[in-house]
Order: sequence, then structure tokens, then C-alpha cells
Amino acid sequence: MNSAQSRKLYDRELKKIENKIARLLVNHNPKSLYEPCSYIMSSGGKRLRPLLVILSAGAVGNEYKKVYNAAVAVELFHNFTLVHDDIMDNSDKRRGKQTVHVKYDLSSAILTGDNLIALAYKSLLKDCGADCRDVIGTFTQGIIEVCEGQSYDKDFEQQKNVSISDYKLMIQKKTAALCETCCSIGAQISGGSDAEIKALSAYGKNLGMAFQIQDDLLDIYGDEKEFGKKVGIDLIEGKKTYLFLKALEKAKGKDKELLKDVIRKQGIKKNQVGKYRNLYSKLGVIEDAEKEIKKYSQKALKELNKLKSSKSKETLEWLIGILIERSK
Amino acid sequence: MNSAQSRKLYDRELKKIENKIARLLVNHNPKSLYEPCSYIMSSGGKRLRPLLVILSAGAVGNEYKKVYNAAVAVELFHNFTLVHDDIMDNSDKRRGKQTVHVKYDLSSAILTGDNLIALAYKSLLKDCGADCRDVIGTFTQGIIEVCEGQSYDKDFEQQKNVSISDYKLMIQKKTAALCETCCSIGAQISGGSDAEIKALSAYGKNLGMAFQIQDDLLDIYGDEKEFGKKVGIDLIEGKKTYLFLKALEKAKGKDKELLKDVIRKQGIKKNQVGKYRNLYSKLGVIEDAEKEIKKYSQKALKELNKLKSSKSKETLEWLIGILIERSK
Repeated sequence: MNSAQSRKLYDRELKKIENKIARLLVNHNPKSLYEPCSYIMSSGGKRLRPLLVILSAGAVGNEYKKVYNAAVAVELFHNFTLVHDDIMDNSDKRRGKQTVHVKYDLSSAILTGDNLIALAYKSLLKDCGADCRDVIGTFTQGIIEVCEGQSYDKDFEQQKNVSISDYKLMIQKKTAALCETCCSIGAQISGGSDAEIKALSAYGKNLGMAFQIQDDLLDIYGDEKEFGKKVGIDLIEGKKTYLFLKALEKAKGKDKELLKDVIRKQGIKKNQVGKYRNLYSKLGVIEDAEKEIKKYSQKALKELNKLKSSKSKETLEWLIGILIERSK
Repeated sequence: MNSAQSRKLYDRELKKIENKIARLLVNHNPKSLYEPCSYIMSSGGKRLRPLLVILSAGAVGNEYKKVYNAAVAVELFHNFTLVHDDIMDNSDKRRGKQTVHVKYDLSSAILTGDNLIALAYKSLLKDCGADCRDVIGTFTQGIIEVCEGQSYDKDFEQQKNVSISDYKLMIQKKTAALCETCCSIGAQISGGSDAEIKALSAYGKNLGMAFQIQDDLLDIYGDEKEFGKKVGIDLIEGKKTYLFLKALEKAKGKDKELLKDVIRKQGIKKNQVGKYRNLYSKLGVIEDAEKEIKKYSQKALKELNKLKSSKSKETLEWLIGILIERSK
């Protein structure tokens, strides 16, 4: 299967998920709860996570049909984290639109997130047979890890000494765990063997790690128009990204002080972004990040080798390339 | 079984649950997440909901052992709602201690609630056999109803026309649904028949309705020291309780205007509580509330008649009396 065929398969499944999501939350009461739920769910996004469920199911059993509700469940789960994270991060905009707590209010945003969790379980249960215990357990563990990851992330904002390994633990929980969950439940529901479930889980986890470091990279090297976000936001907000921590590890003398300034002042001014970008280049941390992304991508691809050949498997391979070459 | 024996059984099970909760969240990381989780879980409370699980299990099968994790799950769930509701209601104190968002911060409180939901599912799964689909479904529906109920409650704060039936729908979702869930999952896990599960669910729901109206009554007629809360808070905050809405329904002329003032000004001053208490007495709404409490209690007791006799059943009967005679 070539790249065009993978894209075709991906887009076909993406469309199905979009249709399913569009029909999901109409005519529910109270409006004060379901309107913000619909608002966030229909505000776009890559829908990467439901596709991971669908393709993982396909890679072990070719039974897409069984997992569309599970695919919707992971997108509900993902959007719960976005709504609550936006409150915690005091973000006004998401995907170019007002965040839920800004458009509605704090209470609505808290309840929207809470309800999305429960709706996620409800949707997931539709695709579980009698043997849903493992699937529900995997999904629940995913939520716990995401909560833990977000807690570490908030801790790191205040913490002066954060190591690269602290950072990796944080993104493993905050980002990679959900990708792992998606692949695992897709494979489980579709009747995958233990070895297949394990391989796909590891694929998802490594893809998630690569994806997050790529995200850190795009923040500072991305094209502002294509990326959809302003460049350098992580530095402006004083976030301890992979690039920042790696730079801090490598820098000496004045350069190190310049980086410590970001921590001391809890962020930099917009007009200083260029200066820090130059410092990152000088220290070679862009290459370091690219090396990490490559490392995790290759681990992910290696896991796929353990699976029998299928269109879904090839599309998962193709997806790795797409994600690490993306500019948004 | 007499009242003393029921109390003994209740207290014995209560102690077991307290021990289980005390051991639940020790040595988990990150501390920033698990400390506030422990804080709220160990801050007391009646533990009514886990006891409903245990007694319902006992009423159909006498197999308490199987449901202790499920009992912990409903208490985790209940505490999630408390933490998030306290943010929404801007409450500083709960059970005489600082609320989570005051003691820690907003982000910690949001994450604490989110994590408690997931921990609840995790605990529940421990008591579910392979056939956990119905149990998880019931539990999930409970969360959805509680979110909907809280949304209605927040809506009513702004809404001028709230009827008694609107109010009943709100408390059915916000309070009674969880009691219903507790009884239902206790009976399900313990292998109850459909008829037994239905009867216990209905018992829980009606008990919850009686419990909430009793709570409204205690707010204004309770003994401040015994109740643990200041008297008249609902009026001060302009909450549309059963008493308030019933008074508004019955009042005419000047009395009605006085009540409408509470809505217009979104609450009253502390020194006006006595005046409104007198108005409630004059309008006879205390008797109306007592009639409602009696009605729901009798419905609950009637459901118990459908069950075979057991110590747990008798304790559930006894519990109704305790709850409606309580002063806190």
C-alpha cells in the first residue's frame, strides 16, 4: 500500500468519526451542560486518538465496526482533558476559538469536563462485550495517568530543578498514556492476542512520546500560520519543554544564566523569543530533539513489525511519518 | 432485630469502610495530586453511600465481602462531586475544614475531582466479575445524572421561575440518583434478581429524595451546633430550596413580594433569616416539607417490603427513620 492509499483509508475513517461525533450530543438536556459539551467536541482537532483505536482494531482483526463507539470515547476523554487543562492554564483560545470557561463560565467548564468523562465510559461500554473488564480497566488507568501527568506538569511550573527524565515521565503520563490506551483498547475489543495488544500499546506510547517532543519543537520552529498557534508560547509562559531542559543541561556561563532567567521570571517577553531561538540553535538542541523524535518513532515502527500485514498496519506506519513531518 | 442491633450492624460496617478508606491513597505520586485526594477522603462525612452499597448487597445475598471496593468507589465518586461543587459554589469550608481549592488551589481541586472519578472506577472494577458491564453502566449513568443535576442547580440560581417539579427533577439527579446507584450496584454485584435490584434502586432513589428535602429543612430549622453549618445559609445565598419554592407558590401580596426579594437580590442578609423563618411558619411550608419527606420515606419502605427478610433489610428500614429524624 502506498502513501496515497494510506491517506485515503485514514480520511475515510476520519469522516466516519466526524459524522458520529456530529450526531452525538444533539437534543440533550440541560442545555447549559450539553451545549458546551457539543461546542468543544465540534471545535475540530486532528481526531488522532479515535483513529488510533480504529487502526489498531483493524491491525488485529479488520473489524472496524465494533470500535466506533470506543473511538468516540477516547475523543470524549481527550476533550475532557482539554477543557479542564484550559482552565488550569488560564487559556483564552483553543483551535482559534474561545475556550469553554471563557465562552461559558468556570462552573460550566468544570461540569462539561466531568460529564465528558462519564459520556466517554457510556460510549465505550457500547462496544464492550460481556468481557469489558480489561477494556474498562485500561481506559480507567489512562485517565489516572493523564491526571498524574497534568499534576506533574503543574508542579514543574513552580519547580526549579526539573530533569529530562522528570520531563519524560510527565509527557509519558500526560500525552503518551492516552495514545497507548487508544491502541490497547482498539486491539482488545477487536480480539487481538496478548502479544498484539502489547505491541500496539507500545506503538501508541512511543508515538505519543514522539508526538509531544515534536509539539515542543513546533512551538518554537513552526510556521505561525500553519501551526495555528503563536510561535514561542512555551518560552513566553516559561514552560519547561524538552528543548528548554536540554538547553539548560548543555549551556554554560552566560547562556545558562539567560536560560535560568526564564525560570526566575516565569517566562520571557514576546520580543525575546528570537534571542532564545538563536541560543537553542547554538546549543544544538533542535538536533537533540529530532534525535529523540526519531528514536521514539523507530521504537514505534519496530513494534508494528510484530504484527501480521494489513492495510491498517501500513496506515499506522504511514501515520508515524505524517506526525513527525507535520508542521501543525 | 431492634434498633440497637441495627445500629450495631451499621457501625460495624461503617468502621470497616473507614479503615479501608484510610488505607486507600497512601504512598501515591505525585503528592500534589494524591495529598488533596487523601485530604478530602479523610475529612469525615456520614459515609451513607458506601453503607447503602453494603446493606443492599446484604439484603439480596448476605455477601458483604464482595462489595467493599464498590462501597469505596461510591464514596470516591461522592467526594469528587463535593470537591468540584465547592469550586462552583465558591465555598470556603466543608465539614468545618478548608475546601480543597482553598487549602490547595483551583488546579489541584479540579485534578483531584477528575482523579477521584477514575479511582472510583478502578475500585469498582475490583469487585466486578466478568459480568461488569451492567454495574459499570449503572455507575456511569449515576455520574451523568449528577452532572446534569448540578447543571440544573446552577441554572436555577439565575432562573426566576423554578417550579416544584423543576426542583424535584434537580434533586432527583443531583442527590437521589447517586443513592439509587449505590443500592443498585450493591444488589447487582451481590447477585440480586432483577426484581430485587429494581426494589433496592427505588428504595435508594426515594431515600435520596427524602434526604435532600430534610437537608433543606435542616438548613433553616436545624440546631446550628448540631447541624455543623450556619442556619439559613440557603436563604442567605438565595438558593431555591423546596421550602422557598413552596412558600413562593403559597404566598400572596406582601409575603410574595418579600420572597421575590430573595430572587431579585440573589439572597438575603444574615439578620433577615428570622423574618423569613417566621414567614415559612406562617405559610405552613414546614408541614408541607415534612409531608413530602414522609411520602418519599414511605415509598422507600414499601420497596423494602418486596425483599426477603434479613438483618440488612431491617437496617435499611431503620436507616430511613434515622435519616429523617436526624438533626445534622
